Amino acid sequence: MSVIDLSKEIGIGIDIGGTNTKYGLVNHRGEILEKGNIKTDAYPTIESFIDALHNALLPIISKYQNGTKLVGIGVGAPNGNYYTGTIEYAPNLIWKGILPIAELMTKKFGIPCALTNDANAAAMGEMMYGAARGMKDFIMITLGTGVGSGIVSNGNIMYGHDGFAGELGHIIVRPGGRKHWSTGHHGPLEAYCSATGITITAKKLRVENPDSLLNEIPEEQVDSKSVFEAAEKGDAAAIEVFRYTGQILGEALANFIMFSSPEAIILFGGVIKAGDYIMRPTKEHMEKNLLPIFQNKVKLVFSELKEADAAILGASALVWES
Amino acid sequence: MSVIDLSKEIGIGIDIGGTNTKYGLVNHRGEILEKGNIKTDAYPTIESFIDALHNALLPIISKYQNGTKLVGIGVGAPNGNYYTGTIEYAPNLIWKGILPIAELMTKKFGIPCALTNDANAAAMGEMMYGAARGMKDFIMITLGTGVGSGIVSNGNIMYGHDGFAGELGHIIVRPGGRKHWSTGHHGPLEAYCSATGITITAKKLRVENPDSLLNEIPEEQVDSKSVFEAAEKGDAAAIEVFRYTGQILGEALANFIMFSSPEAIILFGGVIKAGDYIMRPTKEHMEKNLLPIFQNKVKLVFSELKEADAAILGASALVWES
Repeated sequence: MSVIDLSKEIGIGIDIGGTNTKYGLVNHRGEILEKGNIKTDAYPTIESFIDALHNALLPIISKYQNGTKLVGIGVGAPNGNYYTGTIEYAPNLIWKGILPIAELMTKKFGIPCALTNDANAAAMGEMMYGAARGMKDFIMITLGTGVGSGIVSNGNIMYGHDGFAGELGHIIVRPGGRKHWSTGHHGPLEAYCSATGITITAKKLRVENPDSLLNEIPEEQVDSKSVFEAAEKGDAAAIEVFRYTGQILGEALANFIMFSSPEAIILFGGVIKAGDYIMRPTKEHMEKNLLPIFQNKVKLVFSELKEADAAILGASALVWES
Repeated sequence: MSVIDLSKEIGIGIDIGGTNTKYGLVNHRGEILEKGNIKTDAYPTIESFIDALHNALLPIISKYQNGTKLVGIGVGAPNGNYYTGTIEYAPNLIWKGILPIAELMTKKFGIPCALTNDANAAAMGEMMYGAARGMKDFIMITLGTGVGSGIVSNGNIMYGHDGFAGELGHIIVRPGGRKHWSTGHHGPLEAYCSATGITITAKKLRVENPDSLLNEIPEEQVDSKSVFEAAEKGDAAAIEVFRYTGQILGEALANFIMFSSPEAIILFGGVIKAGDYIMRPTKEHMEKNLLPIFQNKVKLVFSELKEADAAILGASALVWES
């Protein structure tokens, strides 16, 4: 009988973003042994991009070829579909249409490749190495430029019928409300609770409050960070920006909890740097809108992964899942 | 090697409602061999209720004891928890607190008993015998006096962390909206799209439209059925009652789809008898609020089970699942 020595297995985690693609060699304990990145948008075709990735990774892989076993590749990408292994119509990538990433990677590298979307990869990372270790039911919400989400139910990423489950950023939280800049829908979560949404709220509130410190911020610098600084100086309008954002986020989280009854909600991304300014109203309005059977049960926690590493770790976690 | 002859196995399905409890002996093909019912609220204690159930079922079970094998009991009940086998604080049952139904039933009948809530049981029934046969991802919505739901993800009922997942009737669809008669929350789905919600909408609209036929209905008879009859006569306010209800339902369904990406949504219950008056706006607003990747993909269908049998069938389906 041969026993597999997991400590000797390594995987490649790749996070494809619109501008940068990060990659890393990761062991089974979630330690990133090597990492690097290439420019995503510097390659006119998906094939030339994969060639470049291969060229970048080959010297690193060679370093570890004695005594370790390279098991596979995990890729997180916008609109990445786990079922089909294809990236489908990702608006922020320069390659259009349906891209058979998993198949092309497997051909090039000669090892299995699994693909999922970036938010699901983040959830995988939290489950294997982060704040959701040991949990079988949780929801991961990424509050960055947009709002992404990965839902874990009974220990598995929820993919749904076609691989597209978990688009919580596009759930309508204010029917007839703020128009989304890209989808055109009125009132989705992302229009309020992303960094982009916070900027819109801040610009609206500073017009309505001429005395606010927010009016001293140059137009193009109104963002979550500068609003936070104004809040720290006690500016009421700045504090209201986060309270308003937190209320909407909290109401949405209550709805999510009554859907899948998770043990915890893990929050990740730049927006959470506003700390209590946003988290206190979030928690308040989440609890207020829950049925009693759900109240004071669901943990609301921040990701424990370093932002720079989380995407690589999450993608690499796919290697050991499949 | 012994082969289990499934055609000889039978199970008991029990549906506990606030007033009536229905039971039936069901075979593996979903045929109800025998059925009956007792009054739920005629028994002061849960123990005396179970004694009565046992007395009612014993003669039926005896009839089938030759040549068949009684495998187990499945129970659907309000606030029934699959994980714990207990009914927890069900507002419409006369027995209060936490009731260890599964344990008491197993003791009394000497065979395994599984419990779930009534909406999950209905979803099980649809999956095994109804409109969701062969589906691994779907959402069942019951539009009756209240709004119930059962969510199936990757072939399994979604129970969540604590067994309470799938309370979609309590999801807030109109923040700050209509106050729920029981929870006190503002704007939940149930406040608009249940039979109770439709009655409220109709009473509101008939006041605002003094010429409407709705004003000819006696106060205590304003319900989904009488509003439907007025709509059939071409009454604009009556038609608007269902359009408004359908819009809110459709918006909510779009949100649910972007959560779990089901293959279909199965609708059940008295409200769907309003047919196209409610379904056309439901479908329209559902599609309108979906991201393009979800549009024109999700089937919106009615239950295929007879209303009188669905609850028994659904509960009995638990027997073969566990």
